[in-house]
Amino acid sequence: MRVGICGLGTVGSGLFNLFATNHDEIGRKTKDAPQLVQVGCRRDHPDCDLSSVDVTRDVFEVARNPGIDVLVELIGGTDTAKDLVLGAINHGKHIVTANKALIALHGDEVFAAAEKKGVSVRYEASIAGGIPVVKAIREGLAGNRIDWVAGMINGTTNFILTEMSRPGSNRSFDDVLKEAQDLGYAEADPTFDVEGIDAAHKLTILASIAFGIPLRFDAMYTEGISRITSDDILFAAELGYCIKHLGVARRSGRDVELRVHPTLIANDQMLAQVNGVMNSVMVGSDAAGATMYYGAGAGAGPTASAVMADIIDTVRGTQVPNLGFNDLSEPNFTPISSISSSYYLRLGVEDKAGVMANVSTVLSNHGVSIEALIQKDARVRDAQIVILTDEVVESKIDAAISELESLDAVTSSVSRIRVASL
Amino acid sequence: MRVGICGLGTVGSGLFNLFATNHDEIGRKTKDAPQLVQVGCRRDHPDCDLSSVDVTRDVFEVARNPGIDVLVELIGGTDTAKDLVLGAINHGKHIVTANKALIALHGDEVFAAAEKKGVSVRYEASIAGGIPVVKAIREGLAGNRIDWVAGMINGTTNFILTEMSRPGSNRSFDDVLKEAQDLGYAEADPTFDVEGIDAAHKLTILASIAFGIPLRFDAMYTEGISRITSDDILFAAELGYCIKHLGVARRSGRDVELRVHPTLIANDQMLAQVNGVMNSVMVGSDAAGATMYYGAGAGAGPTASAVMADIIDTVRGTQVPNLGFNDLSEPNFTPISSISSSYYLRLGVEDKAGVMANVSTVLSNHGVSIEALIQKDARVRDAQIVILTDEVVESKIDAAISELESLDAVTSSVSRIRVASL
Repeated sequence: MRVGICGLGTVGSGLFNLFATNHDEIGRKTKDAPQLVQVGCRRDHPDCDLSSVDVTRDVFEVARNPGIDVLVELIGGTDTAKDLVLGAINHGKHIVTANKALIALHGDEVFAAAEKKGVSVRYEASIAGGIPVVKAIREGLAGNRIDWVAGMINGTTNFILTEMSRPGSNRSFDDVLKEAQDLGYAEADPTFDVEGIDAAHKLTILASIAFGIPLRFDAMYTEGISRITSDDILFAAELGYCIKHLGVARRSGRDVELRVHPTLIANDQMLAQVNGVMNSVMVGSDAAGATMYYGAGAGAGPTASAVMADIIDTVRGTQVPNLGFNDLSEPNFTPISSISSSYYLRLGVEDKAGVMANVSTVLSNHGVSIEALIQKDARVRDAQIVILTDEVVESKIDAAISELESLDAVTSSVSRIRVASL
Repeated sequence: MRVGICGLGTVGSGLFNLFATNHDEIGRKTKDAPQLVQVGCRRDHPDCDLSSVDVTRDVFEVARNPGIDVLVELIGGTDTAKDLVLGAINHGKHIVTANKALIALHGDEVFAAAEKKGVSVRYEASIAGGIPVVKAIREGLAGNRIDWVAGMINGTTNFILTEMSRPGSNRSFDDVLKEAQDLGYAEADPTFDVEGIDAAHKLTILASIAFGIPLRFDAMYTEGISRITSDDILFAAELGYCIKHLGVARRSGRDVELRVHPTLIANDQMLAQVNGVMNSVMVGSDAAGATMYYGAGAGAGPTASAVMADIIDTVRGTQVPNLGFNDLSEPNFTPISSISSSYYLRLGVEDKAGVMANVSTVLSNHGVSIEALIQKDARVRDAQIVILTDEVVESKIDAAISELESLDAVTSSVSRIRVASL
């Protein structure tokens, strides 16, 4: 089978080199080994010797090339990428892509076009890099009803929170973000990663293949990590938790919740051990129970590994519905105000008698019960109260917070972080 | 596609019920949904209402039944199971099995027969229960050269070591084994699990699909956990390690080592977090790096999940070489005396001056250097010395141990446990 790569950045060059490095090993695993015949790229990559392949500066030439069976889309973005992929499908080519935004936002259109032309669209590399989690969900767990998916699927946010959590570090979000940028783990404009949009794209896809629902990025609740402080991390640790940026998709009957936000995770949970730029996805299912998948979520090698697996699946002719289901059913999306969770609350208070009683009364009046509490006096700075609540509907917490913030004795806005129940 | 189940024990009954529970969900994922039409079992299972299927007491009737497309072998053992599977293949049926011993010991013969008849043999359930690790290796990581596989793939040994490791537990192997037997985690005759044979069967298969080598159970070095003491666990903890029963397959060029034995794992490793009856497999590969797969390794639901995934793959017609490679290449198996590792050594010694110098000299004479050392005086019992060595060839450690045990000042045989390098 003849392959054309569009885009020769980090992933594209990694894939190019993987074709060379593992040519023999891949040949042992396939009957009609994939052959790289063309690369479409605006500029060459210093790590790639392109002398053995046809090179074009116009990626659409790859889409039209009758000598190509599989087009690998690695140019990123959504506009040109969508035109390129739809063009290639129209010319009868199978697609392999690492583009989470393309699938999350335009997957319906792309899959419809592919089904009409009888070609496949694969996207393992769009989620969690080298971890074959799309395959695990669509195939490995296909006998299950999947009830929830929870994962750290963005290396940038996990790196930042891990660094902020190092014992004695006490570093601010802004400080660590700058380090992440220097190390190349975060973009110059980090919004996409640190505000959770990238993770939300990935979770949109995960929810579809887990539950058999349409791709609905707009139904996602998304919250980033930029408001997490070193105080939050210290207090969470004192309570036996770490703070991670978690994507959670959960269904119960026809109700589905989709959310990406900072989350307290108990230190004895497997997901709490996932540090640095590593990714991990946990899947809760009725027969297999909870299974977990862990590895590098980005980088040339891991992403190229996922792309190559998709190419090999294409060569082997593996037939799986694009989103794992023959037909998708529209669920009821639960608005974030209606989810249930335990919450971590942190509030600055005046250091005087009666404050704790006031706070407790407000919570109690809103039906919020307290599971654990830390009160720190004002020796160093403002007195702070940290509360872990029992599980309660989010709208009640919001109402309680509003009332707390109106109290004279409460001197700060209330930090609120959801607690994972895995 | 029409399915017949042979064997209605724990896994068989779990699978039977999964067909009913997830009938609709599985129907949404397959175009020609699998239909359970016959069960072959010596006796019914109280949890299964068999009124909707044909029941036979002769499993070979399922193998001959022209109305069956896929035979699921869940009777266990190797003799009858092999005859049953070969018989079914001969009648043109696809096979799904959870039988690790059958594949590890007779896989070559079974696969050859299946290839001749053009049918598939799938065995995801034979390793690590609900964790789709066969799929991850044969398909998800197919673009990689896999360099090593390391895993806890036996729930019984992991449960026993976890219980022995609980802070303050101080329990002996025999004591916890009895509890495991009472809880149903260990058999009345526990040899198969605690001496590592079950794990060795599984690792035999993992090594074949990772490296593309023939199934060679007899090339495996196998050591169980029955000699691990609570002292070993305490000293390992003091050094920052836990003790796990680990299967390790590693290749370097044409050299392959296959071994199952107790292993010290540093507490900050992901595999060190895998406790109780849970299983986990870590795979080291050239492009994806280290990826890890975690979940329940046994039980009705998890194993049925893996069997059902294989049935769905059969329905979907997924084509993967039986061991992931078109042709297998015979490696050079490294004898255990030639492997390199760091070692934990524990020895009882007389509580007198000069002993430590004697011990150090012996090690040094054999080219063994010391990375860490604990010396405990004799207040409670015999004085003990615990040593963590740098990496060295095993034959040198063995020679050093022989000489140590011949010293007058050494009062016990030397406990030796390999240290994982992951």
